[in-house]
Amino acid sequence: MPNIKVAIQYDGTDFHGWQIQPGLRTVQGCLADALRRLSGEKVKIIGAGRTDAGAHALGQIANFHLEKEFDVAELQRALNSLLPWDVRIVTLSHAPDRFHARRDARSKLYRYQIYTGPVISPFAYRYYLHFPRSLDIEKMEEAAEAFIGAHDFTAFAASASSSSNRVRTVFRSELARAGRRLFYLIEADGFLQHMVRSIVGTLIEVGLGRIGPDEIELILRSRERARAGPTVAARGLFLVRVNYRPIRAER
Amino acid sequence: MPNIKVAIQYDGTDFHGWQIQPGLRTVQGCLADALRRLSGEKVKIIGAGRTDAGAHALGQIANFHLEKEFDVAELQRALNSLLPWDVRIVTLSHAPDRFHARRDARSKLYRYQIYTGPVISPFAYRYYLHFPRSLDIEKMEEAAEAFIGAHDFTAFAASASSSSNRVRTVFRSELARAGRRLFYLIEADGFLQHMVRSIVGTLIEVGLGRIGPDEIELILRSRERARAGPTVAARGLFLVRVNYRPIRAER
Repeated sequence: MPNIKVAIQYDGTDFHGWQIQPGLRTVQGCLADALRRLSGEKVKIIGAGRTDAGAHALGQIANFHLEKEFDVAELQRALNSLLPWDVRIVTLSHAPDRFHARRDARSKLYRYQIYTGPVISPFAYRYYLHFPRSLDIEKMEEAAEAFIGAHDFTAFAASASSSSNRVRTVFRSELARAGRRLFYLIEADGFLQHMVRSIVGTLIEVGLGRIGPDEIELILRSRERARAGPTVAARGLFLVRVNYRPIRAER
Repeated sequence: MPNIKVAIQYDGTDFHGWQIQPGLRTVQGCLADALRRLSGEKVKIIGAGRTDAGAHALGQIANFHLEKEFDVAELQRALNSLLPWDVRIVTLSHAPDRFHARRDARSKLYRYQIYTGPVISPFAYRYYLHFPRSLDIEKMEEAAEAFIGAHDFTAFAASASSSSNRVRTVFRSELARAGRRLFYLIEADGFLQHMVRSIVGTLIEVGLGRIGPDEIELILRSRERARAGPTVAARGLFLVRVNYRPIRAER
């Protein structure tokens, strides 16, 4: 049974997230529908990571096993013609039998986008949090760094989060600025539900002077969700890349 | 009565074009609603140019007269808070009494965007014509130049076009390429309905080798719509800028 690996982009605006849910429009559900229509098979699709309703992906990775053999270029073209415009398979290839998109992932890179100008363009609206206030970027950068390393992220997870082990290792956590646009980049070996969005909500509190950069460590240690900042809107969140190679030594 | 000039951006995907039409969601209609809610006045909004259903604007210009005086910064903020996310007033200022957004416009610049790669990203889909075929760019460039100057554009207008004088003067008509993206730029003193979209449809026919660059002049002179190429999708079309200064000498 061929194991097929795909890289997928989606505009999450009109999706109820990645994970298949009965009666709701999800990315995994659209892919499963397209595969069933094409192959007649009910195919189980394994995604590298779930993304929230409204969040986007530039490089989601998934795999699935098919009974039949297909030409990969043909399969990609046929699936894309069956998929709605807001989800695209950007690459499709054969993978080793035992490749598993979720279990084999070593790290994932997310980007969160903020626009701080007074008026947000309609062409940016779907992809940025609009936050038209002055933020102390230096303090936010200092706070971002405090997330690097292995921490229990309970204080930055949705209370509904089902994970029992809430320790995750962050390899990269940094802010980049381009004019009135702010980009937060975080790479980790795994993410709890709403983790990036509540980290960003906390960084904004730091930027407003309500939380000090030195308090991040205390908030992490407290494991109390109420001590961190709010969960910001999903529309600014992008799953950028899934990494399957061994991680370089931690900084 | 203060005369207010606004620059407007909109994502045209979910609009039935600029012009107000009963029962349909239009940009002019949304602006009129917001102004009525804010000022209680029924305000006539003059746009520099109509744009088609599905076409976008980076720099549409409009003006309107209000009975009351408003602070311009306040007025802009209040209007934007009443408008849907897909239309934004990017600047708002007082204009001389006799300023008229349509009559005073000397030229308008449109851009049409084409993506020629095999798979179009969901983040580009709403703003590009997806045309995944090989095009002869040099021939298209040559054909684009043939539109420069004063011509009767009947062969490139919707048959329903109501204009009796169909002569327009094109100041700029050129193609730019960035990887798999093609941008067609056209600046003229006015545009007939569907003019840019049928010019682009014709340039694509040239790129495919079905029409020669030297035939553009003949098609223009024929005034026969059937001799030009098809009208391409509105989603690739942007009204970029409206120019109110005197035009420099024609090249």
